[in-house]
Amino acid sequence: MDVDKPLRVALIGHGFMGAAHSQAWRVAGRFFDLPRQPRMTLLVGRDARRTEAAARKWGWEETSTDWEEAVQREDIDVVDIVTPGASHAQIAIAALQAGKHVLCEKPLANTVQEAQAMADAAARAADHGTRAMVGFTYRRLPAATHARDLVAAGAVGTVRQVRAAYLQDWLVDAEAPLTWRLDRDQAGSGVLGDLGAHAVDLAQYVTGQQLTEVSGTLETLVATRPLPAAAAAPGSTGLGAAAGTGGRGPVTVDDAAYFSGRFSDGVLGSFEASRMATGRKNALRLEVSGSLGAVHFDLEDLNFLDYYDYTAPPARQGFTRIMVTEPVHPYVSAWWPAGHSLGYEHGFVHQAKDFVEAIAAGTQPMPSFADGFQVQQVLDAVSRSSGKSSVWTPVQ
Amino acid sequence: MDVDKPLRVALIGHGFMGAAHSQAWRVAGRFFDLPRQPRMTLLVGRDARRTEAAARKWGWEETSTDWEEAVQREDIDVVDIVTPGASHAQIAIAALQAGKHVLCEKPLANTVQEAQAMADAAARAADHGTRAMVGFTYRRLPAATHARDLVAAGAVGTVRQVRAAYLQDWLVDAEAPLTWRLDRDQAGSGVLGDLGAHAVDLAQYVTGQQLTEVSGTLETLVATRPLPAAAAAPGSTGLGAAAGTGGRGPVTVDDAAYFSGRFSDGVLGSFEASRMATGRKNALRLEVSGSLGAVHFDLEDLNFLDYYDYTAPPARQGFTRIMVTEPVHPYVSAWWPAGHSLGYEHGFVHQAKDFVEAIAAGTQPMPSFADGFQVQQVLDAVSRSSGKSSVWTPVQ
Amino acid sequence: MDVDKPLRVALIGHGFMGAAHSQAWRVAGRFFDLPRQPRMTLLVGRDARRTEAAARKWGWEETSTDWEEAVQREDIDVVDIVTPGASHAQIAIAALQAGKHVLCEKPLANTVQEAQAMADAAARAADHGTRAMVGFTYRRLPAATHARDLVAAGAVGTVRQVRAAYLQDWLVDAEAPLTWRLDRDQAGSGVLGDLGAHAVDLAQYVTGQQLTEVSGTLETLVATRPLPAAAAAPGSTGLGAAAGTGGRGPVTVDDAAYFSGRFSDGVLGSFEASRMATGRKNALRLEVSGSLGAVHFDLEDLNFLDYYDYTAPPARQGFTRIMVTEPVHPYVSAWWPAGHSLGYEHGFVHQAKDFVEAIAAGTQPMPSFADGFQVQQVLDAVSRSSGKSSVWTPVQ
Amino acid sequence: MDVDKPLRVALIGHGFMGAAHSQAWRVAGRFFDLPRQPRMTLLVGRDARRTEAAARKWGWEETSTDWEEAVQREDIDVVDIVTPGASHAQIAIAALQAGKHVLCEKPLANTVQEAQAMADAAARAADHGTRAMVGFTYRRLPAATHARDLVAAGAVGTVRQVRAAYLQDWLVDAEAPLTWRLDRDQAGSGVLGDLGAHAVDLAQYVTGQQLTEVSGTLETLVATRPLPAAAAAPGSTGLGAAAGTGGRGPVTVDDAAYFSGRFSDGVLGSFEASRMATGRKNALRLEVSGSLGAVHFDLEDLNFLDYYDYTAPPARQGFTRIMVTEPVHPYVSAWWPAGHSLGYEHGFVHQAKDFVEAIAAGTQPMPSFADGFQVQQVLDAVSRSSGKSSVWTPVQ
Repeated sequence: MDVDKPLRVALIGHGFMGAAHSQAWRVAGRFFDLPRQPRMTLLVGRDARRTEAAARKWGWEETSTDWEEAVQREDIDVVDIVTPGASHAQIAIAALQAGKHVLCEKPLANTVQEAQAMADAAARAADHGTRAMVGFTYRRLPAATHARDLVAAGAVGTVRQVRAAYLQDWLVDAEAPLTWRLDRDQAGSGVLGDLGAHAVDLAQYVTGQQLTEVSGTLETLVATRPLPAAAAAPGSTGLGAAAGTGGRGPVTVDDAAYFSGRFSDGVLGSFEASRMATGRKNALRLEVSGSLGAVHFDLEDLNFLDYYDYTAPPARQGFTRIMVTEPVHPYVSAWWPAGHSLGYEHGFVHQAKDFVEAIAAGTQPMPSFADGFQVQQVLDAVSRSSGKSSVWTPVQ
Repeated sequence: MDVDKPLRVALIGHGFMGAAHSQAWRVAGRFFDLPRQPRMTLLVGRDARRTEAAARKWGWEETSTDWEEAVQREDIDVVDIVTPGASHAQIAIAALQAGKHVLCEKPLANTVQEAQAMADAAARAADHGTRAMVGFTYRRLPAATHARDLVAAGAVGTVRQVRAAYLQDWLVDAEAPLTWRLDRDQAGSGVLGDLGAHAVDLAQYVTGQQLTEVSGTLETLVATRPLPAAAAAPGSTGLGAAAGTGGRGPVTVDDAAYFSGRFSDGVLGSFEASRMATGRKNALRLEVSGSLGAVHFDLEDLNFLDYYDYTAPPARQGFTRIMVTEPVHPYVSAWWPAGHSLGYEHGFVHQAKDFVEAIAAGTQPMPSFADGFQVQQVLDAVSRSSGKSSVWTPVQ
Repeated sequence: MDVDKPLRVALIGHGFMGAAHSQAWRVAGRFFDLPRQPRMTLLVGRDARRTEAAARKWGWEETSTDWEEAVQREDIDVVDIVTPGASHAQIAIAALQAGKHVLCEKPLANTVQEAQAMADAAARAADHGTRAMVGFTYRRLPAATHARDLVAAGAVGTVRQVRAAYLQDWLVDAEAPLTWRLDRDQAGSGVLGDLGAHAVDLAQYVTGQQLTEVSGTLETLVATRPLPAAAAAPGSTGLGAAAGTGGRGPVTVDDAAYFSGRFSDGVLGSFEASRMATGRKNALRLEVSGSLGAVHFDLEDLNFLDYYDYTAPPARQGFTRIMVTEPVHPYVSAWWPAGHSLGYEHGFVHQAKDFVEAIAAGTQPMPSFADGFQVQQVLDAVSRSSGKSSVWTPVQ
Repeated sequence: MDVDKPLRVALIGHGFMGAAHSQAWRVAGRFFDLPRQPRMTLLVGRDARRTEAAARKWGWEETSTDWEEAVQREDIDVVDIVTPGASHAQIAIAALQAGKHVLCEKPLANTVQEAQAMADAAARAADHGTRAMVGFTYRRLPAATHARDLVAAGAVGTVRQVRAAYLQDWLVDAEAPLTWRLDRDQAGSGVLGDLGAHAVDLAQYVTGQQLTEVSGTLETLVATRPLPAAAAAPGSTGLGAAAGTGGRGPVTVDDAAYFSGRFSDGVLGSFEASRMATGRKNALRLEVSGSLGAVHFDLEDLNFLDYYDYTAPPARQGFTRIMVTEPVHPYVSAWWPAGHSLGYEHGFVHQAKDFVEAIAAGTQPMPSFADGFQVQQVLDAVSRSSGKSSVWTPVQ
């Protein structure tokens, strides 16, 4: 049995997400009693020098620039993928085939085809006890999990409406540079895949339903942007054409997305994703309205959940602002006394914990690659609907 | 000249809106220095006894059950229409033809055709100095007007996105009775015409743009409801079929509406109207995101406007919660000292003031019947889009 | 019997409070079914021309410059006093002795002695069915009344703590002029009597307890201010010494007050009143913490009450933001449908209603002059404590 | 030179604060570029088995049950003290004398005498380059630091008023057990020393002023509580008298404290500390009102700071809700992208960082033991004032 043996992790990639995942592996076992202790064995990156610096900073034991070799190593149990989406499928499938448990950042892939291949690979791997999970971490913030628990417990009755949005404003400045995230070839999609994916996952998770049909519109509000200085390095970004000229290049992804979606139980929901919502820094919002109540979550106030109890005495009804920091709330008892706030990164710690527990228990960690694939299908349907005058378009 | 002569008002109808308009006529001249003093001359209703009771309660001098005669009376200067939408066109056109200034509650009419006839009649009447205005009162709450002023002054820069919603929850209970508002024949439309119209008007007013194209979906979440006891009286509601049986009847209007709209300047906005948004009592919300800032208004906090200044020093940026109760704010100096809240009804008082001033000045009061007609066209386009799988549909 | 006879009101004074009271008398009978209809018979002021202008604006039938005659008139039933505090005792006592019901603005008087004489006069008048009431209107905002109702119903259990504050900021600017409110001779007291009185009344009203002992400190943060231009008119303000010189005069009242108070049931409360609380426009706040719950009210959000139910399931506890605009809430059903906000002036309308009803019913309207006197005693004790190094000082 | 050499830490104590400090030492060097890397060398506790378990869980290399030996060890550079207050002085003084840098949790000590001895020892040690710091971590939450920065930059002008409170509710239930924190012998003081100390430190830190005089009242609202089951173990708590009897014991500390304080610049502030503020979970609040603006912080929303700019255009003034998660804000750039929330524990990480940097730079880390001593003196003055009918009492 593997229990009590350390769980040796290889992290592939070391951008912003690499920092978050490193923190999760470092911290999870310090607060939760894990069945197996994660060990930060190997950090993999393309550039040896930068990878070594990151490993030193974040505390990884070894480094490599060869992910293909890394995923085959005997001394690795888990492959954690935080590279850009274009490389997810290749790495994840190889790792699963090598018998490694895989945690893959969202979006699962840049295309539906790749996502499907990944889900298929995960299904096959599961037959051998190899686990795969996609990283929609916001589910694991206590207030989000609590929202799901309340809905599942019937606290809002029959769900009637869903409104979801993920609003940021980092592209408000029309002179913000044309980064790789704004290039379709590299990023795969724009705000829809980046932020819309979170809104879809959270809405589906909290309601326990899946979107089956959508009608939507994608927009690019600022069509061209200054080429980044870094673009001067040939080949580095694929945006090289105008490199060094101080010119502008085209934004080839959406920076705002609006859509409606029909859930499997017939409920209709509204969705928005924007990088142009001036003043909104990180507002992933979800409101679920039901026959007996409602819940409302906003990532900018991530320690709180608003809950409306329609069965309370009428004169005492209102949205109850639950500070989701009590020991009775999900994940909270492992941390600090009641009333002490958690932050963004705690979702990653909980994700690491849940993943380790599922591996040890031999169960399917959630959300699965199949779940990630289904989200990709939803986004793809939105994109197709947008191309057909927003006509309602089935998912798949 | 009419200046200094009282302005003799006939109010047609005496439901909830009759109370609000009566309060406005009673109060406007007490706080604002009006060029002509409104006089509450005549209240018109179908039922003599109930009309007399209302007149006594609200302080109207006379009553009548004959609106056709009323709009012809020599001693009437203004006809104020607060009846259900189906009768608006007939009354308003007759009154305009009789040379009376007309204030008509929203929605302007139940059909686009009627609304067009009204707009035409208003245009003809204007040639003779007769004024017509439609009652989108929320524009005249100080915070809403201030939002418009800020946008018009460039405080948010170029508008990039609009999100509008009007959320109520009075239909959450599936056993709430089937009132006339839920019957298409009487109400004309459901939540779209009732609440959606306000969202459209407010969004257009604050941005100074008009919707030219929409994509939307209408929903009826609760399909049947108990027939009201009052339905027992034959003919009283048109819902008589199941009267007295304690049975249920079909809800023939929408109780939720979702749509996206393209404004004349190309900006895309999202809209929602719902009577099923559990816990939201009167949440008419508007957020306008621009290149230099944003404004956010919520009718549930009607004395406040949130304003984001993207040009402020970065470390000091955030949404500023302006308590719009200072003498420098629109309409406020006529009321109480700084910091003293106004309420829902003050919008009606401001509407009466503005209408009286326009009449005295011989200018077109806003929003005009043409504006009301345009809103009807938007709603009609949403309805048509909903019938065509939400395909983008031009307004008109 | 007087029932059904109009209730003829004489209003003494016509400043800001005159406008609020006029609005109340005008409106109360239009929304509430009053046993007797108020009639706006007589407006009394010192300056004939200005009094006539106010009467015309607010709709009073007659004017007078002689309050002594006014309170004796046969055709007056109610004397409503909104003059500065120094004249309250004289007018109120004369009116009561003449058999007129008296409504007197707070503070009841400028001195404890005067307040006592007024309370005595009211007690004697009550023997003859003549009623007297002091105008702490904030009690009658629905959310404040609802707070009292919840506490009285045991919804917070045993009261354990009280925190009350009334914060404004209109004196932040050190160059704001030296108005009569900053002159002890005219105003009687500073922020303690003006704002602190409201905080004391509200705290006592909601808890149902009276303060018996206090420890406090009074402060004058800006010691001198520019003399107002109006001071140029000799004798007009009592600040004439430096008139016309463009000089500054001393602020002779407190502009900030801090105190603790012991209630009759032993509970300790904290109090603050300030005209220097930058950014706080009208923040009368009250929080009552009990063994089973808590309530929190803030006048800047006067349609809301926050309620904490400590007996709710632990995972669902939080402050419930009750929008106190439902028909089940105090006073609300007379107004608009659910979810429609009331404003500052509605408290005055409710006050007029309650006063008329008490007169018609022959019962004691609350708060009585005895209540007003008791508040004066509390403020006096604070002032004495402040003079004795904040030592705990019994009320009375 | 020590630079580049690891900084070997011994942590004395392993309760809730031990977890927070362990997390800080583990994480600080992963996000900040520290001049010396902390090494989690030694965990010291009284009970060998529990200490070992904690060390394993939190990742300390070695354990010891002998603090006296520990503070002498050659291979220890820093002694970090998180034991109950009664032992602080003994441990800290010994460690300083042994040349170890000392970080000591607040309150510095249980008595003024001990705190003074510690401050004296720290002053002597400083002569030899040995550093001492007391752990008021809340200063180091970005929003709190930002508040200080704004005040220091003149953004609020001249400070006029301060209102501070620290409200919790964990003692609302009168049947909550009599823990060591409620026993004066063990805890030293009650809510004043525990929560009031934070309010005092934060107010002094943000204003840059020190309290020189206070007037206050201490209360014990629930006088007796059930003895804890654990009390059955003789000697373990000092509450053994009633052990095993299921009886109740006396609460010998305050559970609510109210006081006013005069700052060195003459400003007056109000303070409250409570463990009985029903519904308030962790509400450390500070509002500083100045001649040009104000700031408001609340620990329950620790990523936000409300800032009022009295110099802004009047129609645009209001409290600006700054989400203090931008790279321009204190400490933030080391963490996540803009808009991603930090939590309670990040204050401890920042504390570790600042302490390490001060050690490496050879400068005095703040707050010093002298600062901690001064806070103790303030609390002592409050306590003495409370014993003398709240008379104003000088600090020291």
